[in-house]
Amino acid sequence: MSTNPGFFPHLSVDCVLLGYDGEKLNVLLVEYGSELDTEKFSSQKLPGSVIYDNEDVDDAAERVLYELTGIKNIYMKQFKCFANPDRTKNPRDKYWLENAIRQKIGRIITVGYLALLRIDKKGPQLSKEHNATWCPLDELQSLAFDHNLIIEDAVKQVRKEIEMEPAVLFELLPKKFTALELRTLFDMVHGVKADVRNFHKKIAAMEYVVPLEERQSNVSHRAARYYRFDKKIYNKIHG
Amino acid sequence: MSTNPGFFPHLSVDCVLLGYDGEKLNVLLVEYGSELDTEKFSSQKLPGSVIYDNEDVDDAAERVLYELTGIKNIYMKQFKCFANPDRTKNPRDKYWLENAIRQKIGRIITVGYLALLRIDKKGPQLSKEHNATWCPLDELQSLAFDHNLIIEDAVKQVRKEIEMEPAVLFELLPKKFTALELRTLFDMVHGVKADVRNFHKKIAAMEYVVPLEERQSNVSHRAARYYRFDKKIYNKIHG
Repeated sequence: MSTNPGFFPHLSVDCVLLGYDGEKLNVLLVEYGSELDTEKFSSQKLPGSVIYDNEDVDDAAERVLYELTGIKNIYMKQFKCFANPDRTKNPRDKYWLENAIRQKIGRIITVGYLALLRIDKKGPQLSKEHNATWCPLDELQSLAFDHNLIIEDAVKQVRKEIEMEPAVLFELLPKKFTALELRTLFDMVHGVKADVRNFHKKIAAMEYVVPLEERQSNVSHRAARYYRFDKKIYNKIHG
Repeated sequence: MSTNPGFFPHLSVDCVLLGYDGEKLNVLLVEYGSELDTEKFSSQKLPGSVIYDNEDVDDAAERVLYELTGIKNIYMKQFKCFANPDRTKNPRDKYWLENAIRQKIGRIITVGYLALLRIDKKGPQLSKEHNATWCPLDELQSLAFDHNLIIEDAVKQVRKEIEMEPAVLFELLPKKFTALELRTLFDMVHGVKADVRNFHKKIAAMEYVVPLEERQSNVSHRAARYYRFDKKIYNKIHG
């Protein structure tokens, strides 16, 4: 057993916050950019940074998210460690990072954190310091480091969790929702377009999606029925 | 954003292989020990070591497992990064590690890998170089570093996965198995003693556990019926 004594990896955390706004699934990004060899570059990145000396990764993720976006009290789950030696191969990324942390770096390994949440006018509020913004997943540009890949993996993880534990999906919807709202969310998460008729069958088969008497009001089209998610029925089936 | 320039964490991988031998759930350990301040110490640890300069963590886990135990071609899943700053607080652990990798270390962060497998006379074969041995979970001593905690977390992870995907459990059993064998495995994994009667009801409710006509032979007690796991029925229900 031996390693190169010059090899000191830095460890960072990166937070993938996936937010559903009722229409699209978005990911939270912060600004990223600098000037290298007189050429300016700018893009976006996930909220993330190196961990402190005496800090566990979970604490680092919470701190970094707050520092870069102003968001706190969000439960994030560690989902994967990204350690491909090529993840900092772009000299811009390395230059930006060395500037940001005021240290030469060799290699940086990051631990990915994930949260799925509902976003609306009420929140969460974003701080302006690092231009934190929600970007729809289908409008993602090329991001810094391997952040596109990290987001892809996070979405795969979410799909897997929803398959195992469908309740997760309903936490993103309002208390009463229409079949269209549920289908839109479902399509968004799975990256597919579900057949409308089959989807209605699917809803009918989900005993924990309970139709209400109430319908939409003040709509120009035919008022759709509301449904609600029944946690008790769900727990009986999935418990 | 700033970090102490003297802070260079090392990154390692640790492999938790949980093996079921038909009676007990075991974890694979290797020897660990040295002499510090003229006092000899010895114990056991998980197969694990620091990652190489140009190595991804998945590759490191595969390499380290092979080097320390002789086992290869086992699918291991990354399950958690352990980064508590206190995880190397025991001077023995630090001393042993610095000796092993011939480097001073500050802090070491490890990525845990997990595999669940069946062990029997056929394998897997273990190399002798580091005294790799299977230790029953209920006989674990105090291990090096935070390895007891890592194993605890790994077992929790396995329980969660089996709850979500019960098929995992049946991969540990022979093709035909008795209710007692299934119950023993179930108890072992969940760390409980299931009530015998309730457990028979549970088996009856699992449509994918199919009773066979065949019974045990050459046993002194009443010959128990064999069951088999039906993957097709299972997939219909869980697919």
